[in-house]
Amino acid sequence: MSSPSDKSLNAQVDRLRLELHELKQEQGALDVRIGDYLLTRLEQLGVRYIFGVPGDFNLGFLDLVEDHPTIKWVGNCNELNAAYAADGYARVKQQLGVVITTFGVGELSAINGIAGAFSEMVPVLHIVGVPNTSQQKAKPMLHHTLGDGRFDAYQKAAEQFTIAQVQLDDAETAAKDIDRVLEACITKARPAYLTVPTDIAFKKIKSDRLKIPLSDALAPNDPHTEQTVIDEIAQLVEKAQGSVVILVDACAKRHHCQHEVALLAKKTGFPVFSSPMGKTAVSETYERYGGIYVGSLSRPDIKDAVESAKLILSVGALKSDFNTGGFTYKVPRGKTVELHSTHTAIRYAVYPEIAMKELLPKLTARLSAGSQSYKIPAFTSKLPEESDSKISQAWFWPKMGTFFQPKDVLLAETGTSSFGILDVALPKDAIFEAQILWGSIGWTVGSTLGAAVAAREMGLGRTILFIGDGSLQLTVQELSTMLREGLKPIIFVLNNSGYTIERWLHGKHRKYNDIANWNWTALLGTLTTSPEVKHKSYTVHTKDELTALLEDSKFAKCEEGMQLVEVMMDQLDAPRALLAQAELSNTSNVYAEDLS
Amino acid sequence: MSSPSDKSLNAQVDRLRLELHELKQEQGALDVRIGDYLLTRLEQLGVRYIFGVPGDFNLGFLDLVEDHPTIKWVGNCNELNAAYAADGYARVKQQLGVVITTFGVGELSAINGIAGAFSEMVPVLHIVGVPNTSQQKAKPMLHHTLGDGRFDAYQKAAEQFTIAQVQLDDAETAAKDIDRVLEACITKARPAYLTVPTDIAFKKIKSDRLKIPLSDALAPNDPHTEQTVIDEIAQLVEKAQGSVVILVDACAKRHHCQHEVALLAKKTGFPVFSSPMGKTAVSETYERYGGIYVGSLSRPDIKDAVESAKLILSVGALKSDFNTGGFTYKVPRGKTVELHSTHTAIRYAVYPEIAMKELLPKLTARLSAGSQSYKIPAFTSKLPEESDSKISQAWFWPKMGTFFQPKDVLLAETGTSSFGILDVALPKDAIFEAQILWGSIGWTVGSTLGAAVAAREMGLGRTILFIGDGSLQLTVQELSTMLREGLKPIIFVLNNSGYTIERWLHGKHRKYNDIANWNWTALLGTLTTSPEVKHKSYTVHTKDELTALLEDSKFAKCEEGMQLVEVMMDQLDAPRALLAQAELSNTSNVYAEDLS
Repeated sequence: MSSPSDKSLNAQVDRLRLELHELKQEQGALDVRIGDYLLTRLEQLGVRYIFGVPGDFNLGFLDLVEDHPTIKWVGNCNELNAAYAADGYARVKQQLGVVITTFGVGELSAINGIAGAFSEMVPVLHIVGVPNTSQQKAKPMLHHTLGDGRFDAYQKAAEQFTIAQVQLDDAETAAKDIDRVLEACITKARPAYLTVPTDIAFKKIKSDRLKIPLSDALAPNDPHTEQTVIDEIAQLVEKAQGSVVILVDACAKRHHCQHEVALLAKKTGFPVFSSPMGKTAVSETYERYGGIYVGSLSRPDIKDAVESAKLILSVGALKSDFNTGGFTYKVPRGKTVELHSTHTAIRYAVYPEIAMKELLPKLTARLSAGSQSYKIPAFTSKLPEESDSKISQAWFWPKMGTFFQPKDVLLAETGTSSFGILDVALPKDAIFEAQILWGSIGWTVGSTLGAAVAAREMGLGRTILFIGDGSLQLTVQELSTMLREGLKPIIFVLNNSGYTIERWLHGKHRKYNDIANWNWTALLGTLTTSPEVKHKSYTVHTKDELTALLEDSKFAKCEEGMQLVEVMMDQLDAPRALLAQAELSNTSNVYAEDLS
Repeated sequence: MSSPSDKSLNAQVDRLRLELHELKQEQGALDVRIGDYLLTRLEQLGVRYIFGVPGDFNLGFLDLVEDHPTIKWVGNCNELNAAYAADGYARVKQQLGVVITTFGVGELSAINGIAGAFSEMVPVLHIVGVPNTSQQKAKPMLHHTLGDGRFDAYQKAAEQFTIAQVQLDDAETAAKDIDRVLEACITKARPAYLTVPTDIAFKKIKSDRLKIPLSDALAPNDPHTEQTVIDEIAQLVEKAQGSVVILVDACAKRHHCQHEVALLAKKTGFPVFSSPMGKTAVSETYERYGGIYVGSLSRPDIKDAVESAKLILSVGALKSDFNTGGFTYKVPRGKTVELHSTHTAIRYAVYPEIAMKELLPKLTARLSAGSQSYKIPAFTSKLPEESDSKISQAWFWPKMGTFFQPKDVLLAETGTSSFGILDVALPKDAIFEAQILWGSIGWTVGSTLGAAVAAREMGLGRTILFIGDGSLQLTVQELSTMLREGLKPIIFVLNNSGYTIERWLHGKHRKYNDIANWNWTALLGTLTTSPEVKHKSYTVHTKDELTALLEDSKFAKCEEGMQLVEVMMDQLDAPRALLAQAELSNTSNVYAEDLS
């Protein structure tokens, strides 16, 4: 226990500290390094891991990252993979992802990953360490330059693929600049670009702005317009007499409207369908969930259920070719309400700046509780009976469906995987990610790293990747980072001897679609020498072998280390949806002569 | 033997064929597909191998590549590596290199490789398969797009890093456009960008332009200006009374002036020195060759020999930081003549458009035969006597010098390798490549593939790569392509547990400079399963182990397959030149606080 004099002394110390602090504030004390200001902002936005590759112009800033108490550095094997990792982390956390690279060589290696985040609307901040502010002016012929003094060439390229950019070359405005770029990134759910000259990271500035939190909230909807919108929608709903479906898509995820959509569905009883990019935006175990709608590639009962509705409430639609069955949506504007983050469209009328996040709860409140009369198909998949022991695509995906568990984080590479998994209903709280619009093969390897880091941080379930042998070769080294980080994903490598999706698009028997076969089960053992890092690899040739493995509880628990499963499949075997998509692509993307 | 009537009939057939051909020409017969026109041009420019990755918008054009009688396709594991391979191929052949990627995802993955070719002046043509011409106009939301209709975003990015661009969307002008872009690429020794819409590759056009060969010749020098330049130089040479040295740099290689420089040196007797980027532009076994000049990082005797000359004839200088010892050249303009591909500078006067390729032979003719009196240092390196059995950088490089053979093609990754090899005199007709200005780590793996393909095509010697463990992880998968192509390079992996060059620049003991250790000797066996592909891997821990390996004639012959040698080295051991460079960088690139 402290004596009365102690108490009085302590109180005096506290008062003096406060006075000193206030005086410093008044005098505008320079109390935070710009690099630390940036890191504090990232911490406030929930960032706990940053991905990237060290390079000579970012090393000083990396000192600050490495010394940060709550943010951890994950060093990647290369910059493209690092950008993919930041993307995967951002998707699973539904928050900001961050990647750090170096001037020129590093940032350009990452640019495809950044462009993919732009395309698919993922908030990734790209921080680039660049030469110091006096070098930026004098433009000497430094390494990592183009040799012609154009120090701005990389930023000009970045402008094509980011929503906001800043070069932090002025300490006076740095805090404001950082805040502007970060707010653009999180409100628009698009990547942003921020360069840190070597000397700037350590310059001190005032920290007072840090007290005002950044927000991803959009400007409030105009109340009069919003009221009109709600009235109009309510009227259409009434007219449709229960023949209404909700169609949920990618932007519902990206703009954090999943909860709002679920409440709308629950109250109204309207059945919910999802696009491929919207998969898992609404739980696939929800009793009124009807499955994946993808135009003419849909399962016939799902197609019929969506297209025969009198009114479609579309939430966060993103109508790309692979997300709409090659533009075969039969969802005419005349019977559609489209809710977006940037506007609302009711049949043929557009209401600019009426955003769905604010609108949805009000709409839910307004609409009556539904009758649940609209019949929906059961979204389940049956294991086909095949006498052949070999593992077919038709059998593989429903089989995997039986293996999935609630809270699993599932990634599927563009190709047979991203098409094959669509027809499988995923468990409650499972998270599914694929890159259906951008479609850069190899993306899932980096993004699985980021997703697994996020899943561990958030206490989610297992992380499971499905990828073909061709795609895995693009970015394979990042498996090493997963091992190094002690992550325990399962990697299913669909070994079908090359680029099967491309064979179906064009060049079925062409040599350019062949790849080298690798000794896949030797891979993990090659990518680590640490005795503490456990891992296991398997090859399965038959249905029985795969079944036995999936039933092995040790395997299924994923607790002992990372696991890789090579699944042997026929070169030309492809899921139903991919074959149908390829047929559509071939008609639109036809070559003058078919030499394949 | 043919009868007289046979002869007459044959003559008649020939006449008719000629007549038909001429008539077709007159009528403007459309006799070649645009894709084939392009390939014929590439063939004319000496291209025998094209690198790249298939993707759905380039598959049709790849049919034409695969069917071409003299051009072969090398499928890469990813696009960055493919761009690096085209760069390496172009450097060794001193001709055009070609890489093919697909729209958006593929081309952006390659962009760092293209920017590196721009920076280091290597003529690489980047061909991108893009959506068809009607899609280019309608801009649907295709996969591989940004989702916002900006189909030109990728070309805008490419404009920053290429000397010429064209989208082949008009069959009428396609031939002319192709020729323009190719000529810019080869005359300026910089990359160019050419997109082929899927439908355009197969459109037919007239082939008559193909009869006019493309040329990399620059416009002829203005005779009056050139004469003045020759007179001025001759006068300066005379005044210098034999105290003249030639300093040869990167652009002498890039603009094909090596032969001209050798003749100038031979006639005049002036000693020749080289910058790091000019290494092997003049044979390092030439009797009047004095070694590598790199400012204050030079060996003291070399530094003295260059800097004490009264006149310096500089050929193709490229004064980047790492090529000049951190801008410590002591070669004042007042005693320098600079020959370039774009201009000539005599002391303080600049003569625009007087190009070295044409000037050099005339200058050689004008100057008198030299006295060979100027003393030059012997450019040899001695194996240091070290009692320690472990392999030091100081011992390793001179030791490797004893292993090299004439016509070897040697590549050294940016880091301890590119600095370490500088002090080693290379054999006659050896080719050396490193990326000293751009310095993108991982570059040598792709470029070794391209270099090895070129070396095989040209009948050169062994291809040997030196690379650190950190750099190899960035682009490692391309070793698989070397195996698949049956190439037999030796890969020396300097295993020093991370990014040693960065440790010396900043963060000596920082965790961000650590990497995962790999089981390097298991790598080649993981990257192929083909029983026909032979390969062997070794780890050497001591001087004796390395010596024994180098003396093994089977190993040295490189005939039985690809070989990988893991060389165990201390984490902080670095070559003399790198330590000196790091010290210079640390003063110019200083951080406000040193937290490392």
